[in-house]
Amino acid sequence: MKVKRSDRLIDMTNFLLDHPRQLVSLPFFVKRYSSAKSSISEDLGIIKRAFKARGLGNVQTLPGAAGGVEYFPGVSVPVATEFLELMAGKLADKERLLPGGYLYLSDLLGNPNYLKVIGRLIAAQYSGQKVDAVMTVATKGIPIAQSVAGYLGVPFVIARRDAKITEGATVSVNYVSASSDRIQKMELSKRSLSEGAHVVIVDDFMKGGGTIRGMHDLLKEFQAHLVGITVFAETSFKGQRLIQDYTSLLKIVEINTQTDQIEVQLGNYLDKLVAVQTSKQE
Amino acid sequence: MKVKRSDRLIDMTNFLLDHPRQLVSLPFFVKRYSSAKSSISEDLGIIKRAFKARGLGNVQTLPGAAGGVEYFPGVSVPVATEFLELMAGKLADKERLLPGGYLYLSDLLGNPNYLKVIGRLIAAQYSGQKVDAVMTVATKGIPIAQSVAGYLGVPFVIARRDAKITEGATVSVNYVSASSDRIQKMELSKRSLSEGAHVVIVDDFMKGGGTIRGMHDLLKEFQAHLVGITVFAETSFKGQRLIQDYTSLLKIVEINTQTDQIEVQLGNYLDKLVAVQTSKQE
Repeated sequence: MKVKRSDRLIDMTNFLLDHPRQLVSLPFFVKRYSSAKSSISEDLGIIKRAFKARGLGNVQTLPGAAGGVEYFPGVSVPVATEFLELMAGKLADKERLLPGGYLYLSDLLGNPNYLKVIGRLIAAQYSGQKVDAVMTVATKGIPIAQSVAGYLGVPFVIARRDAKITEGATVSVNYVSASSDRIQKMELSKRSLSEGAHVVIVDDFMKGGGTIRGMHDLLKEFQAHLVGITVFAETSFKGQRLIQDYTSLLKIVEINTQTDQIEVQLGNYLDKLVAVQTSKQE
Repeated sequence: MKVKRSDRLIDMTNFLLDHPRQLVSLPFFVKRYSSAKSSISEDLGIIKRAFKARGLGNVQTLPGAAGGVEYFPGVSVPVATEFLELMAGKLADKERLLPGGYLYLSDLLGNPNYLKVIGRLIAAQYSGQKVDAVMTVATKGIPIAQSVAGYLGVPFVIARRDAKITEGATVSVNYVSASSDRIQKMELSKRSLSEGAHVVIVDDFMKGGGTIRGMHDLLKEFQAHLVGITVFAETSFKGQRLIQDYTSLLKIVEINTQTDQIEVQLGNYLDKLVAVQTSKQE
């Protein structure tokens, strides 16, 4: 039975949101809704316009026999700015201060509403690039990696500091945590990443960059390619960072344990996003 | 400027999917689309019907001044059955067998497409109940907890076997792993759960039930209420299980390391889902 336009629009919206960066052939929708190809094309035009108006990203239609439609999640600069300012305000809350000048973040990184936006923001940066997987290190980076992977439509893989019998054979690297000067080890299951994969690295926090550098070294052991690095928050760091080219959503400038004050700024994310969006329009 | 019906339907679909179990007032949409309340009501009627037809769950409208619309994610029995059979087939793949009779699962639980369905399935079970948080234990349960929490619109909290300085003060319990008879400890940050919270417990795997029992004991320390327990896979276990009332999506009946055969059945999930759906219709 032919499905009405209103019902098609609702179901297609849901389908595209659920299958980002996956080429869906027009005949698939033709069959799903018992509707003409021309009607489906019109539907997609309406969805493309509505997604664009709300800054949800780009719905791209490819003509021809191998063609179809593909949804690339995106975000508008105003929506991104508003969210990052909200997060900066929350990070600066002195109630987060823990002994030793650490910050409690589990409420933010355990909130699926925030994680959805964080994932969308990070994914939007890589919308024009080939990505096969998202990588992080256990434990705090996992929710971010999962959310980003969801918007990029690829798997996420987790490096670990402690070997688990349920991971099978692993590849390991040693790395130096620049902030503590200690040598540590991280491992990644051999099965989890295929040779030559294009990988985005994400983590919750970066200080000296040693952990990220360790993940990068792991990638090299897999002959994998680094697409980019994004962290939720970087902290200011006196000394030479082990990683130069990265994106941060937020920057913790100072944690003053005497006055209980936390100074937070936006990271370099918005600059990177604008650069990506500008290059696509050219 | 007034927004057209087609554009409203697309944006509302996205909005409701992104804000499950959150009451949205009709005036919010009236303002967002500069449209009459009667038009918004009609839109919601169309969305309700379309979601129901695809088994996406229930769009509930509440009349009156305090009213509005709320989306409860759900799943149809055929969609759930098809997915669980797909997972059962994948679990029975002998390539997963690791030394010691362990199974490699990271590919399944690192795939955001599968995680979305797993989260939807588990959330659908609790759609009629008050839930304040989802709880799991690090590390493998995290992706499941995050996905379920996303569909329930609540935070997830992570118990840990190793204390972290970034968690602040914690509450800890000892628990006995029934499969290994070893006493272990797990901790939960005091900040992560408020007293009296209603909590769903999830994990990737259950054998003797000791770990789940540990989480249940932690809940008691927080004066929190257990809403339900769901695991991705249970394994058959000779002896007395420490947990009786739980849901499993899958059941690993036997792992034969001699013949490299893994026997997998569906768990009790479908029975539970049917019971929930039947009770709601009464």
